[in-house]
Amino acid sequence: MSGRPAVGVDLGGTKIHTVVATPEGEVLGEDRRPTDAAEGPDAVLGRLIASIRRALASAGPPSGEIAGAGISSPGPCDPRRGVVTNAPNLPGWHEIPIARIVSEQLGVPALLENDANAACYGEFRFGAGRGHQHIVYVTLGTGIGGGIIIDGKIYEGASGAAGEVGHIIIDQDGPPCNCGGRGCLEALASGPAIARAAQAAVEAGRSPALAQLAAGASLTPELVLQAAEAGDATAREVIERAGYQLGLGLVGLLNVFDPQALILGGGLLGLGDLYLEPALRLARERPFAQIVADVTIVTATLGERAGALGAAALVMDRPIL
Amino acid sequence: MSGRPAVGVDLGGTKIHTVVATPEGEVLGEDRRPTDAAEGPDAVLGRLIASIRRALASAGPPSGEIAGAGISSPGPCDPRRGVVTNAPNLPGWHEIPIARIVSEQLGVPALLENDANAACYGEFRFGAGRGHQHIVYVTLGTGIGGGIIIDGKIYEGASGAAGEVGHIIIDQDGPPCNCGGRGCLEALASGPAIARAAQAAVEAGRSPALAQLAAGASLTPELVLQAAEAGDATAREVIERAGYQLGLGLVGLLNVFDPQALILGGGLLGLGDLYLEPALRLARERPFAQIVADVTIVTATLGERAGALGAAALVMDRPIL
Repeated sequence: MSGRPAVGVDLGGTKIHTVVATPEGEVLGEDRRPTDAAEGPDAVLGRLIASIRRALASAGPPSGEIAGAGISSPGPCDPRRGVVTNAPNLPGWHEIPIARIVSEQLGVPALLENDANAACYGEFRFGAGRGHQHIVYVTLGTGIGGGIIIDGKIYEGASGAAGEVGHIIIDQDGPPCNCGGRGCLEALASGPAIARAAQAAVEAGRSPALAQLAAGASLTPELVLQAAEAGDATAREVIERAGYQLGLGLVGLLNVFDPQALILGGGLLGLGDLYLEPALRLARERPFAQIVADVTIVTATLGERAGALGAAALVMDRPIL
Repeated sequence: MSGRPAVGVDLGGTKIHTVVATPEGEVLGEDRRPTDAAEGPDAVLGRLIASIRRALASAGPPSGEIAGAGISSPGPCDPRRGVVTNAPNLPGWHEIPIARIVSEQLGVPALLENDANAACYGEFRFGAGRGHQHIVYVTLGTGIGGGIIIDGKIYEGASGAAGEVGHIIIDQDGPPCNCGGRGCLEALASGPAIARAAQAAVEAGRSPALAQLAAGASLTPELVLQAAEAGDATAREVIERAGYQLGLGLVGLLNVFDPQALILGGGLLGLGDLYLEPALRLARERPFAQIVADVTIVTATLGERAGALGAAALVMDRPIL
């Protein structure tokens, strides 16, 4: 630990978000800009460096006074080598040694972590997970990912891929999943799973309200929520059912990890109680009583800043380079 | 670590098994005797102490020269307090401070660990898990339990209940489970699950061979195997189906833990390839490729000695009392 501020960058498929943060989590400087991922790695790396420089300028201290830079990137990436091995959301990114590039450009140490782990670490250090040493973090959005903290450290696993909580199988006869399997949690409780179930309801003629929304655009979880809030029973059922599936997955995670805190994050939190209540009901009723008694189940508190703050905290906490 | 031998006791519902072992896993002395659990805690504790004394006598060194005694007991128990809180397989055992009792009787430090964790630790130190630091151990028998080793240490979780791998949900519409839920791995792939599926096949008139075996006795996994080996297609299918369910559970465990080693132990290994092949096929095909590439999937090698050896190793490796 250095006591000095650090840079954290959340490199996403659509947005680059940079913070300069103190060890207490205070944000001294910040920058957001589009990734424009289609322009390829060189252009994106240029924007990423520019974003860091802008955030540092807004924060005050020159780069020589910071502890280093942490980068959160979509997976798969290899934190140990600091290399983005292959990122489906970043066209052309194969074996990009991003930590070395950033380190050379800025003249400070740099490290890489995958986005779910970085956000998990952010919540652990500054957000909903503060004070807990064993944490399971589940991020709910287009995919369902996760991060695991054990004894206050990110658990990376043997190949750096631990925490793929979206790919526990909860329905062996369920729909195909992006991972190549079927019936994974992600195939049943993610945003696309909700959109797909709503689309199926439209095609089966079960929801005039959804059919009307689907006529103008592809169905999204937000549109399904809109229909549910307007009183459409089918839309409501689709969201509740996805929440129930989420709960089935959480039961297994709780029974296996017996964590101090289970943190739910990601864009689908915007679906509110309709999605979360069925999940929380299962998560509180089904696991072993002593596990339920000792776990705190909470929603993430850092919002879109979690990844950047977590990446910055990793630099502060980790001996690097 | 003391370098001295330690006592390990595996206290089971039917059998007490004691070893005196060296830090290298050499067994210097050993004793086995029936638990006779129905006689209650006092009688069982007396036999347990007698078993330790006999094992020590056969080993040579007086108790003053051993590092201590480790006890493996069926759950639920509280390793941190050394107390068997409530063991369904040991009638009358509620809040028994077994570590303190053994320590006082023998005049050496003593500790308690639950049976799945102790067996996991035994395999980690002396058996199939040697050389690995991140291990998931799954024991397959009347129940399906587990142990998790992370960074070379048993991961106990927030309440000491981590590793309940039998209670991930793999079929939301599946049969009721002992835990109060339904469709858990244990409800679909354990010994009783196999017996139940075979019984259902008999009642549906689908297996004359199983019906004949069931006429004389309750069906057991061993009888189902016997029928399968005699060529009964339904019996074969019942075992293969249970193995497939096991595989579905293993996929989730692999994706979440990304372990260096996945160890399968317990009595159901006796069902052989008929049970294991479908499980291993899924476990090798379905998880993320980088996870499959980095994991060693093996069967346990210590057999019935795993719990006692693991309990002894815990004493050698852990600072206690």
